[in-house]
Amino acid sequence: MESAEQIILGIDPGYADMGYGLISRFRGHDRCLAYGSLRTAAGAPTGERLKDIHDGLVRLIEEFRPSKAAVERLFFSKNAKTAIPVAEARGVILLCLSQQEVPCVEFSPAEVKMAVCGHGRADKPEMQKMVQVLLGLERMPKPDDAADALALALALVSTNVPRVV
Amino acid sequence: MESAEQIILGIDPGYADMGYGLISRFRGHDRCLAYGSLRTAAGAPTGERLKDIHDGLVRLIEEFRPSKAAVERLFFSKNAKTAIPVAEARGVILLCLSQQEVPCVEFSPAEVKMAVCGHGRADKPEMQKMVQVLLGLERMPKPDDAADALALALALVSTNVPRVV
Repeated sequence: MESAEQIILGIDPGYADMGYGLISRFRGHDRCLAYGSLRTAAGAPTGERLKDIHDGLVRLIEEFRPSKAAVERLFFSKNAKTAIPVAEARGVILLCLSQQEVPCVEFSPAEVKMAVCGHGRADKPEMQKMVQVLLGLERMPKPDDAADALALALALVSTNVPRVV
Repeated sequence: MESAEQIILGIDPGYADMGYGLISRFRGHDRCLAYGSLRTAAGAPTGERLKDIHDGLVRLIEEFRPSKAAVERLFFSKNAKTAIPVAEARGVILLCLSQQEVPCVEFSPAEVKMAVCGHGRADKPEMQKMVQVLLGLERMPKPDDAADALALALALVSTNVPRVV
Protein backbone atom coordinates (compact mmCIF):
# COMPACT_ATOMS: atom_id res chain seq x y z
CA MET A 1 0.00 0.00 0.00
CA GLU A 2 1.37 3.41 -0.99
CA SER A 3 1.93 5.91 1.79
CA ALA A 4 2.10 9.04 -0.38
CA GLU A 5 -0.89 10.46 -2.21
CA GLN A 6 -0.82 9.75 -5.92
CA ILE A 7 -2.70 12.01 -8.32
CA ILE A 8 -3.61 10.50 -11.66
CA LEU A 9 -4.89 12.26 -14.74
CA GLY A 10 -6.98 10.27 -17.19
CA ILE A 11 -7.43 11.64 -20.70
CA ASP A 12 -9.88 10.57 -23.39
CA PRO A 13 -8.38 12.26 -26.46
CA GLY A 14 -10.68 14.24 -28.72
CA TYR A 15 -10.57 17.18 -31.06
CA ALA A 16 -13.95 18.79 -30.36
CA ASP A 17 -13.98 17.58 -26.74
CA MET A 18 -11.18 16.15 -24.64
CA GLY A 19 -12.42 14.23 -21.61
CA TYR A 20 -10.38 14.49 -18.43
CA GLY A 21 -10.63 12.97 -15.00
CA LEU A 22 -8.41 13.41 -11.97
CA ILE A 23 -8.32 10.96 -9.11
CA SER A 24 -6.30 10.73 -5.95
CA ARG A 25 -5.14 7.41 -4.54
CA PHE A 26 -4.16 7.55 -0.91
CA ARG A 27 -3.64 4.44 1.19
CA GLY A 28 -5.48 2.29 -1.34
CA HIS A 29 -8.50 4.58 -1.43
CA ASP A 30 -9.45 6.34 -4.68
CA ARG A 31 -11.17 9.69 -4.67
CA CYS A 32 -12.36 11.82 -7.56
CA LEU A 33 -10.81 15.28 -7.61
CA ALA A 34 -12.30 16.65 -10.82
CA TYR A 35 -13.66 15.63 -14.18
CA GLY A 36 -14.99 17.31 -17.27
CA SER A 37 -14.48 18.01 -20.91
CA LEU A 38 -12.27 20.59 -22.61
CA ARG A 39 -14.25 21.94 -25.54
CA THR A 40 -12.69 23.58 -28.54
CA ALA A 41 -14.46 26.23 -30.61
CA ALA A 42 -16.29 24.65 -33.56
CA GLY A 43 -15.39 26.46 -36.76
CA ALA A 44 -12.11 27.87 -35.42
CA PRO A 45 -8.91 27.03 -37.33
CA THR A 46 -7.38 23.66 -36.42
CA GLY A 47 -4.26 25.28 -34.96
CA GLU A 48 -6.34 27.39 -32.59
CA ARG A 49 -8.42 24.43 -31.47
CA LEU A 50 -5.25 22.41 -30.80
CA LYS A 51 -3.89 25.37 -28.85
CA ASP A 52 -7.09 25.39 -26.75
CA ILE A 53 -6.46 21.73 -25.91
CA HIS A 54 -2.81 22.41 -25.09
CA ASP A 55 -3.52 25.44 -22.92
CA GLY A 56 -6.44 23.77 -21.13
CA LEU A 57 -4.32 20.73 -20.36
CA VAL A 58 -1.45 22.89 -19.05
CA ARG A 59 -3.93 24.61 -16.69
CA LEU A 60 -5.20 21.24 -15.40
CA ILE A 61 -1.64 20.00 -14.82
CA GLU A 62 -0.64 23.21 -13.04
CA GLU A 63 -3.71 23.04 -10.81
CA PHE A 64 -3.60 19.34 -9.87
CA ARG A 65 0.07 18.37 -10.40
CA PRO A 66 -0.64 14.76 -11.42
CA SER A 67 2.23 12.33 -11.01
CA LYS A 68 1.10 10.19 -13.97
CA ALA A 69 -1.34 10.28 -16.83
CA ALA A 70 -3.32 7.56 -18.63
CA VAL A 71 -4.25 8.25 -22.26
CA GLU A 72 -6.46 6.14 -24.50
CA ARG A 73 -4.70 4.51 -27.41
CA LEU A 74 -6.16 5.04 -30.87
CA PHE A 75 -6.86 2.34 -33.38
CA PHE A 76 -6.96 3.03 -37.03
CA SER A 77 -10.15 1.06 -37.55
CA LYS A 78 -12.10 2.57 -34.69
CA ASN A 79 -13.71 5.61 -36.21
CA ALA A 80 -12.41 6.22 -39.70
CA LYS A 81 -13.96 9.63 -40.22
CA THR A 82 -12.64 11.28 -37.08
CA ALA A 83 -9.40 9.30 -36.59
CA ILE A 84 -7.11 11.93 -38.09
CA PRO A 85 -8.33 14.96 -36.08
CA VAL A 86 -8.43 12.85 -32.91
CA ALA A 87 -4.86 11.67 -33.58
CA GLU A 88 -3.78 15.28 -34.15
CA ALA A 89 -5.31 16.21 -30.78
CA ARG A 90 -3.68 13.18 -29.17
CA GLY A 91 -0.28 14.29 -30.51
CA VAL A 92 -0.78 17.64 -28.79
CA ILE A 93 -1.81 15.88 -25.56
CA LEU A 94 1.28 13.61 -25.56
CA LEU A 95 3.50 16.60 -26.36
CA CYS A 96 2.00 18.60 -23.52
CA LEU A 97 2.45 15.77 -20.99
CA SER A 98 6.07 15.41 -22.10
CA GLN A 99 6.70 19.16 -21.82
CA GLN A 100 5.13 19.17 -18.34
CA GLU A 101 7.09 16.05 -17.37
CA VAL A 102 4.05 13.97 -16.54
CA PRO A 103 4.84 10.32 -17.35
CA CYS A 104 2.16 8.86 -19.55
CA VAL A 105 0.81 5.35 -20.01
CA GLU A 106 -1.48 4.32 -22.84
CA PHE A 107 -4.40 1.91 -22.63
CA SER A 108 -6.61 0.31 -25.20
CA PRO A 109 -10.37 0.51 -24.53
CA ALA A 110 -10.37 -3.25 -23.78
CA GLU A 111 -7.57 -2.84 -21.22
CA VAL A 112 -9.57 -0.12 -19.44
CA LYS A 113 -12.68 -2.31 -19.37
CA MET A 114 -10.65 -5.21 -18.04
CA ALA A 115 -9.06 -3.07 -15.32
CA VAL A 116 -12.26 -1.34 -14.23
CA CYS A 117 -14.96 -3.97 -14.79
CA GLY A 118 -12.90 -7.16 -14.70
CA HIS A 119 -13.69 -8.13 -18.28
CA GLY A 120 -12.89 -6.59 -21.67
CA ARG A 121 -16.41 -6.50 -23.10
CA ALA A 122 -18.19 -4.16 -20.70
CA ASP A 123 -20.58 -1.73 -22.34
CA LYS A 124 -20.70 2.01 -21.67
CA PRO A 125 -23.42 2.00 -18.93
CA GLU A 126 -21.63 -0.82 -17.07
CA MET A 127 -18.33 1.09 -17.21
CA GLN A 128 -19.94 4.32 -16.05
CA LYS A 129 -21.67 2.54 -13.17
CA MET A 130 -18.36 0.99 -12.08
CA VAL A 131 -16.62 4.38 -12.23
CA GLN A 132 -19.42 5.83 -10.09
CA VAL A 133 -19.21 3.01 -7.53
CA LEU A 134 -15.39 2.85 -7.37
CA LEU A 135 -15.11 6.59 -6.81
CA GLY A 136 -18.20 6.85 -4.57
CA LEU A 137 -19.79 9.50 -6.79
CA GLU A 138 -23.38 10.53 -6.08
CA ARG A 139 -24.11 10.92 -9.78
CA MET A 140 -23.01 9.15 -12.92
CA PRO A 141 -20.11 11.22 -14.29
CA LYS A 142 -21.11 13.12 -17.45
CA PRO A 143 -20.31 13.77 -20.30
CA ASP A 144 -19.28 10.32 -21.56
CA ASP A 145 -15.72 11.36 -22.37
CA ALA A 146 -15.22 12.57 -18.78
CA ALA A 147 -16.46 9.20 -17.50
CA ASP A 148 -14.07 7.48 -19.94
CA ALA A 149 -11.23 9.63 -18.65
CA LEU A 150 -11.99 8.71 -15.02
CA ALA A 151 -12.03 5.04 -16.10
CA LEU A 152 -8.57 5.51 -17.65
CA ALA A 153 -7.26 7.03 -14.42
CA LEU A 154 -8.75 4.12 -12.45
CA ALA A 155 -7.18 1.66 -14.88
CA LEU A 156 -3.79 3.22 -14.24
CA VAL A 157 -3.99 3.07 -10.44
CA SER A 158 -5.34 -0.46 -10.49
CA THR A 159 -2.83 -2.00 -12.89
CA ASN A 160 0.86 -1.95 -13.33
CA VAL A 161 1.30 -1.16 -16.98
CA PRO A 162 4.90 -0.46 -17.88
CA ARG A 163 4.36 1.06 -21.35
CA VAL A 164 5.31 4.70 -21.30
CA VAL A 165 4.47 6.50 -24.55
CA MET B 1 4.34 41.64 -57.96
CA GLU B 2 5.05 41.87 -54.23
CA SER B 3 7.53 44.48 -53.09
CA ALA B 4 8.38 42.94 -49.70
CA GLU B 5 10.26 39.68 -49.29
CA GLN B 6 8.02 36.80 -48.30
CA ILE B 7 9.46 33.81 -46.46
CA ILE B 8 7.48 30.59 -46.74
CA LEU B 9 7.93 27.42 -44.72
CA GLY B 10 6.82 24.16 -46.30
CA ILE B 11 6.30 21.15 -44.04
CA ASP B 12 5.88 17.50 -44.96
CA PRO B 13 4.54 16.06 -41.69
CA GLY B 14 6.14 12.93 -40.34
CA TYR B 15 6.78 11.23 -37.04
CA ALA B 16 10.23 9.71 -37.66
CA ASP B 17 11.23 12.51 -40.08
CA MET B 18 9.56 15.85 -40.70
CA GLY B 19 10.59 17.41 -44.00
CA TYR B 20 10.98 21.18 -44.10
CA GLY B 21 11.83 23.67 -46.80
CA LEU B 22 12.16 27.45 -46.60
CA ILE B 23 11.92 29.67 -49.62
CA SER B 24 12.02 33.40 -50.13
CA ARG B 25 9.91 35.12 -52.75
CA PHE B 26 11.09 38.61 -53.65
CA ARG B 27 9.83 40.51 -56.67
CA GLY B 28 8.47 37.34 -58.21
CA HIS B 29 11.72 35.42 -57.81
CA ASP B 30 11.86 32.34 -55.58
CA ARG B 31 15.02 31.37 -53.77
CA CYS B 32 15.71 28.40 -51.50
CA LEU B 33 16.89 29.40 -48.02
CA ALA B 34 17.14 25.99 -46.38
CA TYR B 35 15.75 22.50 -46.48
CA GLY B 36 16.17 19.30 -44.57
CA SER B 37 14.55 16.77 -42.31
CA LEU B 38 13.97 16.87 -38.56
CA ARG B 39 14.67 13.38 -37.28
CA THR B 40 13.28 12.03 -34.04
CA ALA B 41 15.03 9.38 -31.99
CA ALA B 42 13.77 5.91 -32.90
CA GLY B 43 12.83 3.99 -29.79
CA ALA B 44 12.31 7.10 -27.65
CA PRO B 45 8.88 7.56 -26.01
CA THR B 46 6.27 9.16 -28.30
CA GLY B 47 6.02 12.28 -26.13
CA GLU B 48 9.77 12.89 -26.41
CA ARG B 49 9.76 12.43 -30.17
CA LEU B 50 6.85 14.85 -30.50
CA LYS B 51 8.76 17.30 -28.32
CA ASP B 52 11.76 16.96 -30.67
CA ILE B 53 9.49 17.93 -33.57
CA HIS B 54 8.03 20.85 -31.63
CA ASP B 55 11.39 22.18 -30.47
CA GLY B 56 13.02 21.74 -33.89
CA LEU B 57 10.18 23.58 -35.55
CA VAL B 58 10.35 26.43 -33.04
CA ARG B 59 14.07 26.80 -33.81
CA LEU B 60 13.39 26.93 -37.57
CA ILE B 61 10.67 29.56 -37.08
CA GLU B 62 12.89 31.66 -34.80
CA GLU B 63 15.75 31.50 -37.29
CA PHE B 64 13.84 32.21 -40.50
CA ARG B 65 10.70 34.05 -39.32
CA PRO B 66 8.42 32.73 -42.07
CA SER B 67 5.30 34.78 -42.79
CA LYS B 68 3.29 31.70 -43.81
CA ALA B 69 3.50 27.93 -43.76
CA ALA B 70 2.20 25.24 -46.10
CA VAL B 71 1.47 21.83 -44.56
CA GLU B 72 0.47 18.66 -46.36
CA ARG B 73 -3.03 17.44 -45.65
CA LEU B 74 -3.42 13.83 -44.52
CA PHE B 75 -5.84 11.36 -45.97
CA PHE B 76 -7.07 8.45 -44.02
CA SER B 77 -6.56 6.01 -46.84
CA LYS B 78 -3.06 7.10 -47.76
CA ASN B 79 -0.90 5.01 -45.53
CA ALA B 80 -2.95 3.06 -43.06
CA LYS B 81 -0.11 1.77 -40.92
CA THR B 82 1.56 5.10 -40.24
CA ALA B 83 -1.46 7.43 -40.45
CA ILE B 84 -1.98 7.73 -36.69
CA PRO B 85 1.63 8.64 -35.69
CA VAL B 86 1.88 11.00 -38.67
CA ALA B 87 -1.39 12.66 -37.64
CA GLU B 88 -0.09 12.97 -34.05
CA ALA B 89 3.03 14.70 -35.39
CA ARG B 90 0.90 16.89 -37.64
CA GLY B 91 -1.16 17.98 -34.63
CA VAL B 92 2.05 19.09 -32.91
CA ILE B 93 3.12 20.95 -36.08
CA LEU B 94 -0.20 22.80 -36.39
CA LEU B 95 -0.11 23.63 -32.67
CA CYS B 96 3.41 24.97 -32.96
CA LEU B 97 2.58 27.16 -35.98
CA SER B 98 -0.43 28.53 -34.09
CA GLN B 99 1.64 29.23 -30.96
CA GLN B 100 4.26 30.98 -33.09
CA GLU B 101 1.57 32.89 -34.99
CA VAL B 102 2.58 31.59 -38.41
CA PRO B 103 -0.58 31.37 -40.59
CA CYS B 104 -0.85 27.95 -42.12
CA VAL B 105 -2.41 26.68 -45.33
CA GLU B 106 -2.96 23.01 -46.08
CA PHE B 107 -2.54 21.31 -49.44
CA SER B 108 -3.39 17.88 -50.71
CA PRO B 109 -0.60 16.08 -52.61
CA ALA B 110 -2.58 16.58 -55.86
CA GLU B 111 -2.85 20.34 -55.23
CA VAL B 112 0.92 20.55 -54.75
CA LYS B 113 1.55 18.63 -57.98
CA MET B 114 -0.88 20.87 -59.82
CA ALA B 115 0.72 24.04 -58.49
CA VAL B 116 4.34 22.92 -59.07
CA CYS B 117 4.11 20.75 -62.22
CA GLY B 118 0.86 22.03 -63.77
CA HIS B 119 -0.93 18.70 -63.45
CA GLY B 120 -2.11 16.59 -60.52
CA ARG B 121 -0.52 13.30 -61.56
CA ALA B 122 3.19 14.15 -61.54
CA ASP B 123 5.41 11.43 -60.11
CA LYS B 124 8.14 11.95 -57.52
CA PRO B 125 11.12 12.41 -59.92
CA GLU B 126 9.13 14.92 -62.01
CA MET B 127 8.19 16.89 -58.88
CA GLN B 128 11.76 16.88 -57.58
CA LYS B 129 13.08 18.02 -60.96
CA MET B 130 10.58 20.90 -61.03
CA VAL B 131 11.53 21.94 -57.49
CA GLN B 132 15.19 21.91 -58.52
CA VAL B 133 14.50 23.98 -61.66
CA LEU B 134 12.11 26.46 -60.05
CA LEU B 135 14.54 27.16 -57.21
CA GLY B 136 17.68 27.02 -59.36
CA LEU B 137 19.26 24.35 -57.19
CA GLU B 138 22.48 22.71 -58.35
CA ARG B 139 21.43 19.39 -56.93
CA MET B 140 18.15 17.53 -56.53
CA PRO B 141 16.99 18.28 -52.96
CA LYS B 142 17.30 15.25 -50.69
CA PRO B 143 15.85 13.54 -48.66
CA ASP B 144 12.46 13.10 -50.36
CA ASP B 145 10.51 14.68 -47.52
CA ALA B 146 12.64 17.84 -47.77
CA ALA B 147 11.94 18.01 -51.52
CA ASP B 148 8.22 17.53 -50.76
CA ALA B 149 8.39 20.35 -48.21
CA LEU B 150 10.01 22.70 -50.76
CA ALA B 151 7.26 21.75 -53.23
CA LEU B 152 4.66 22.68 -50.59
CA ALA B 153 6.32 26.07 -50.07
CA LEU B 154 6.37 26.62 -53.84
CA ALA B 155 2.70 25.63 -54.05
CA LEU B 156 1.88 28.28 -51.48
CA VAL B 157 3.70 31.12 -53.20
CA SER B 158 2.35 30.15 -56.60
CA THR B 159 -1.31 29.80 -55.67
CA ASN B 160 -3.80 31.76 -53.68
CA VAL B 161 -5.33 29.20 -51.39
CA PRO B 162 -7.60 30.73 -48.80
CA ARG B 163 -7.90 27.73 -46.45
CA VAL B 164 -6.21 28.45 -43.18
CA VAL B 165 -6.16 25.45 -40.87
